[in-house]
Amino acid sequence: MILYSFFNSSTSYRVRIALALKGIEYQLRTVSIREGEQYSAAHRSLSPIGGVPVLVTDDGEVLTQSLAILDYLDAIAPQAPLFPTEPMRRARVQELALLISCDIHPLNNLRVLKYLEYELGLKAGERSEWYGHWIAKGLAAAEILLQRADPATFCFGDTPGAADCCLVPQVANALRMNCDLAPYPRVLQIHQACLAHPAFQAAAPERQPDYPG
Amino acid sequence: MILYSFFNSSTSYRVRIALALKGIEYQLRTVSIREGEQYSAAHRSLSPIGGVPVLVTDDGEVLTQSLAILDYLDAIAPQAPLFPTEPMRRARVQELALLISCDIHPLNNLRVLKYLEYELGLKAGERSEWYGHWIAKGLAAAEILLQRADPATFCFGDTPGAADCCLVPQVANALRMNCDLAPYPRVLQIHQACLAHPAFQAAAPERQPDYPG
Repeated sequence: MILYSFFNSSTSYRVRIALALKGIEYQLRTVSIREGEQYSAAHRSLSPIGGVPVLVTDDGEVLTQSLAILDYLDAIAPQAPLFPTEPMRRARVQELALLISCDIHPLNNLRVLKYLEYELGLKAGERSEWYGHWIAKGLAAAEILLQRADPATFCFGDTPGAADCCLVPQVANALRMNCDLAPYPRVLQIHQACLAHPAFQAAAPERQPDYPG
Repeated sequence: MILYSFFNSSTSYRVRIALALKGIEYQLRTVSIREGEQYSAAHRSLSPIGGVPVLVTDDGEVLTQSLAILDYLDAIAPQAPLFPTEPMRRARVQELALLISCDIHPLNNLRVLKYLEYELGLKAGERSEWYGHWIAKGLAAAEILLQRADPATFCFGDTPGAADCCLVPQVANALRMNCDLAPYPRVLQIHQACLAHPAFQAAAPERQPDYPG
């Protein structure tokens, strides 16, 4: 398999964690979204919207959207399951993964921050307020959902799954942007547990070949 | 089951279509997101982020996030499957559903439009450009993914599924905002096919009890 990834893309990071959890070997190809490489004709032939991650399977199928990739990996490589099989337990993992993927991340990704800066002329302080606003709304809801779940090491159990694959990159973004995470103790506790796990360590931005020297 | 829904919420509309496709009876409870009812303490006890849809199952489990609800419904009610079982075919449906759910819808929902208006002071024209920008980027990518799929009546086959549940409400939003959809002929063709289907008709905003008289 080939994974197109950018070290600091949180959606790429989700897939790198999943691949590491499952112990799947893959070739990494880096795409600098800071330098606009995702909009090259070559990359757009893989990802029509111009994004990472992109997975190319051993059969040559090209798949975008990190959560679709996680679902696919879980179907073809059942070891270290990312989603439980019981319908409501599965739905709980999806609910948290989607809260992050739909209600937080899309508002703060690079293309949106660029629109705010270049199309709307927002100053750094306004952009940072925007960023923190959606982080706070989203993580406050995540904290409640996580506190309602059974106590466990990870989001939903004592092994990490798809919700953890989404939570850790989102927390990494929030920390990088200096958001105050003290109101979300359960989020922070799970984040710490994940950081101690070898798969999360292997997938971390600073362990990627495109991490700035 | 109980579904908390707003007639014009496209994420509620996705779930209404899915329930209708599967022929599942449910009680509808309307939540006016225009009047801020989603932020009441009562509603926030169901949806911590303050949103619709919310599904309450017959067991009293409370589930948010439309795609988590679709996945759950597919697990407990296998008739009229929303997702195929073969891993790559399933991933294709997820890819399109997530493109709409992550790369288009979150940028244009009401809470974001309100932030643009009240926090950033954007005028109607600027908000409408913002809206159209993300619709155009997203539907252009959707068009390419759909044109790559095998020719069929619906997004991925001759019966509607989760991708269609997401596409139709997104097209409805785009039409309501007067976006030019001529560049997306396959999207429009599928939209037309869906509108002729009784489940999509039953789920339509204008058929809901909270549709303004």
